[in-house]
Amino acid sequence: MSDDLREALQRVQEGRLQAADALRQNLDALRSDACSQAFVRDFAASALACAEAADAQRRAGLPAPALAGLAISVKDLFDVAGFPTTAGSRVLAGAAPAAVDCPAVARLRRAGAALIGHTNMTEFAYSGLGLNPHHGTPLNPATRRIDGLARIPGGSSSGAAVSVAAGAAWAALGSDTGGSIRIPAALQGLVGFKNTARLTPTEGTVPLSPALDTACAITRSVRDAVLLHEILADRQVKPSARPLRARRLAVVKEIFQDGLDAATAAAFERSLAALAQAGAQIETISLPPLAGLVSYRVSSVAIEAWAWHKPLLSAREAEYDPRVARRIREGEAISGAEYLERLAARRAFIAAMEAQLRGFDAVLSPTVPVVAPLLQPLLDSDTDYVAANALLLRNTSIVNALDGCAISLPCQGADELPVGLMLWSTALQDDTVLDLALQVEAILTKAGH
Amino acid sequence: MSDDLREALQRVQEGRLQAADALRQNLDALRSDACSQAFVRDFAASALACAEAADAQRRAGLPAPALAGLAISVKDLFDVAGFPTTAGSRVLAGAAPAAVDCPAVARLRRAGAALIGHTNMTEFAYSGLGLNPHHGTPLNPATRRIDGLARIPGGSSSGAAVSVAAGAAWAALGSDTGGSIRIPAALQGLVGFKNTARLTPTEGTVPLSPALDTACAITRSVRDAVLLHEILADRQVKPSARPLRARRLAVVKEIFQDGLDAATAAAFERSLAALAQAGAQIETISLPPLAGLVSYRVSSVAIEAWAWHKPLLSAREAEYDPRVARRIREGEAISGAEYLERLAARRAFIAAMEAQLRGFDAVLSPTVPVVAPLLQPLLDSDTDYVAANALLLRNTSIVNALDGCAISLPCQGADELPVGLMLWSTALQDDTVLDLALQVEAILTKAGH
Repeated sequence: MSDDLREALQRVQEGRLQAADALRQNLDALRSDACSQAFVRDFAASALACAEAADAQRRAGLPAPALAGLAISVKDLFDVAGFPTTAGSRVLAGAAPAAVDCPAVARLRRAGAALIGHTNMTEFAYSGLGLNPHHGTPLNPATRRIDGLARIPGGSSSGAAVSVAAGAAWAALGSDTGGSIRIPAALQGLVGFKNTARLTPTEGTVPLSPALDTACAITRSVRDAVLLHEILADRQVKPSARPLRARRLAVVKEIFQDGLDAATAAAFERSLAALAQAGAQIETISLPPLAGLVSYRVSSVAIEAWAWHKPLLSAREAEYDPRVARRIREGEAISGAEYLERLAARRAFIAAMEAQLRGFDAVLSPTVPVVAPLLQPLLDSDTDYVAANALLLRNTSIVNALDGCAISLPCQGADELPVGLMLWSTALQDDTVLDLALQVEAILTKAGH
Repeated sequence: MSDDLREALQRVQEGRLQAADALRQNLDALRSDACSQAFVRDFAASALACAEAADAQRRAGLPAPALAGLAISVKDLFDVAGFPTTAGSRVLAGAAPAAVDCPAVARLRRAGAALIGHTNMTEFAYSGLGLNPHHGTPLNPATRRIDGLARIPGGSSSGAAVSVAAGAAWAALGSDTGGSIRIPAALQGLVGFKNTARLTPTEGTVPLSPALDTACAITRSVRDAVLLHEILADRQVKPSARPLRARRLAVVKEIFQDGLDAATAAAFERSLAALAQAGAQIETISLPPLAGLVSYRVSSVAIEAWAWHKPLLSAREAEYDPRVARRIREGEAISGAEYLERLAARRAFIAAMEAQLRGFDAVLSPTVPVVAPLLQPLLDSDTDYVAANALLLRNTSIVNALDGCAISLPCQGADELPVGLMLWSTALQDDTVLDLALQVEAILTKAGH
């Protein structure tokens, strides 16, 4: 693991690192080939001013803000005062600059973040692959270091993950509606924590599905995920004194392990073995309510997306990524009654799942069933795109339907393509999931993952 | 005013009235001609047992429950353990008896109510007139005493109001989604209080529009409205020490006084004069947000109704009142996106109205623009039915759209057809509205209304 944000903060605090020097390195990375499609606009001047101000404050002996002027990137759907918000699209290219920071960004700025730029994303966040025909698709820097091939970054927070993996930011603000934080984190060897949606503010963002949208972050470590969550949710995570062996963990029989590729299956099995070796109790359980879920009867994303996009898409569809436009249009034909049925089905699903999962501290699953797919076939074929998108979103989106929380952390071995291990639970079990993830990360690191 | 519930409770407490004797009188009324269409089923045996038990408890010196075994009627959409719930319909005639009381009924029962029967209603509560082709339409007993003509009871809580006006119950549990408590109360010279929806439980009821449905009561006095609300909401109403002259009241320029008939206009003007005479400050104000409302862009009743009725109506439409079926079907063609637009428009309407009404304690309006229409023309003509329904719901439904609270109290003179005066305000101003209504009732009674 390269330095995480906590480590950098420690160095700043001890005078071994100047925030402005760190920021110049981040800007070099932002301008490097690895980040050539990762940002849609940078905030270089204001970020540097922020870092320099933080350094000056520290030299003057003033209390340093939590993030000490270090670089955080912002997904292009969060309003940042003075810049337009375009959600990776062309149709919003002429948008006026935001007058004020949205609440999530304001919390980062108040915590001393040097906001370094708006990151590229799947247009309007509506796909888990990360392809973007308008700004280009950022290549996966983590896999490129391993096998040299052009693989997808994962999405929708594609540039967010690349900004962290390629050294342009210590952490990335993103959003997760069906997996948009966890998928790129998993495919790029990073940590992605999707908190229970109600805990973080989504006002001042371009919505995908207000019922599901979350503001959350991609980081280099679990402890950084805790730090970013505490800032974004404006709350303290309560650590637990319970050892891993006092926890009940579950692996689910259905769906989650279907169709794993060899690398993912091997990394997942090795991780379970390492955890068991460390004393974890892991039970294999059945979750019958998942049978209802796969029929997509509980998803209202397309309907809510269409409701927001209707005027824009009706007038300017040619400027949309046709694959995104098609997904949004799926909401057009759905009736009000069916929307209400889906909301009711989701409530029933949540209640049934919560009943099944009572007594378990968290569930362990592969975040994504496969390592990062190659980019070119997905550019070439709509069929491949649709299939890959469904596969990549399959596991993560169950947790959004559940209104739950989940963290993805790397579980591959050295010199292997990144694989994400997802720990997840029901609504408001965020602290339990984070606490467990700290322990799991330590065990996997020790085991050489 | 004949005895109200508080007066009867006083008499029971002082040993001047036995609950069982009172109940037998209620049952006589229930079986009289005036109530021939007011009930769809009675709970005579259990009601009498309840009254007798309350008397026995009192004789034994045990603390008497708040309602002391006195009769309360229940609209046929609330579950009562042991009886089917049919919502005034034929399609639910074969429904199994409810296993448990719904929470609103349970609160009344715990408070010592003798539940006397399920009252007739507009089928599925979806009209403000009170016509019911399956069980017959109960005639308005209050107008019949004045002019002898067959006039409508108002709805949808038609039988609820008749049960109180004709002496079969001291108060009636009903529901209000667009005016279903206030319209029959106004047309029958009774008090109808529709609290802010979130304050009372609607679980275990046949829904019309879950976003708007309220559980509330029709009573003979404002103090009885306070008592019933305290039981149904399981809360205490906080009395205010502020005199009427320290309150700011408003009369609205737009909509509310359009097209009043002569009797309603005269009663309303006389009421305003009596209140002004008593020191009330009444300002005439303009409410521009009402312009947006009349386009019905904020109503989602049909959509929510269709979502519930879809399976039943699709299979058995011939058994529905065709006028109700037609209204429910209006929700069929409305898309999920339009539903979301309406929810957003309603939120905007509420915010705009709350801004306009800040600083006012309540608004005064006629509850219904006209006295109770004659029944026969509405039976004969769909056009007349649609027009009358829209007119009767016009004023009351604005308060439901506002998520507000409102009380209707009688304001006609002696030997005049009943006219309702509505005091209303924004969400959670229930105690202010009730408190003002107590003062207004006293002033109007003194002035001979």
